[in-house]
Amino acid sequence: MSDSPHTTSTSHKAINFAEKLGKFDSLWSPKVIAEMNDYQFKIVKLEGEFVWHQHEDTDETFIVLEGSLNIAFRDGNVTINQGEMYVVPKGVEHKPIAEKLVKAIIIEPRGVVNTGDSDKGDLTAENDVWI
Amino acid sequence: MSDSPHTTSTSHKAINFAEKLGKFDSLWSPKVIAEMNDYQFKIVKLEGEFVWHQHEDTDETFIVLEGSLNIAFRDGNVTINQGEMYVVPKGVEHKPIAEKLVKAIIIEPRGVVNTGDSDKGDLTAENDVWI
Repeated sequence: MSDSPHTTSTSHKAINFAEKLGKFDSLWSPKVIAEMNDYQFKIVKLEGEFVWHQHEDTDETFIVLEGSLNIAFRDGNVTINQGEMYVVPKGVEHKPIAEKLVKAIIIEPRGVVNTGDSDKGDLTAENDVWI
Repeated sequence: MSDSPHTTSTSHKAINFAEKLGKFDSLWSPKVIAEMNDYQFKIVKLEGEFVWHQHEDTDETFIVLEGSLNIAFRDGNVTINQGEMYVVPKGVEHKPIAEKLVKAIIIEPRGVVNTGDSDKGDLTAENDVWI
């Protein structure tokens, strides 16, 4: 194959979730796989309980690829199963809980920190890590 | 169950893609299932060839839930299979082609018209239709 400018076909490549998920094991550590305008798509593996936090300036979308994710709110909770999504509204305190391993996609604006406004340093993942 | 303000648990509900897909049959007719800030998640059924078009102001994300979607570009093409996604950059002419039925999620800002800048009136779907 040639990189010549005369090549008539460019290789565009889809992003495969399973392939990306196979590249890391760390929990609660979102990895960026794509950007759309100023939003990022991140894949993540979750197991156990996260911390209560909120994102003051933005909604946050979860799409579950495998497993069953529970998100606790101060007034209830939601269970997101494989093939389902949920949008956590901005400013709403929430606490993700994964009894067993969950593989999910998170969609939110570039720059959002996983622990939001909380000060739980240990769980604050490095931001903007691509995989 | 009561709607009393004293209820201690609110019913939050995940959005199930299969359930939403079961509610319509029309092709090339995106239905909104959720919003995140000023972005919309739309599910769509595609079969056949769409028109060449572009979205001057925004990227557009495709996540394939079932089937295999081809998107032609002027300089090549991409195949997006089940479990894969692709972000079409803004301003890039593209033509979705589904040899067989494809079920997919499209993510883009509220207000984006499916045919973009093209004037193919027959294929221009009503916008902002929720399901």
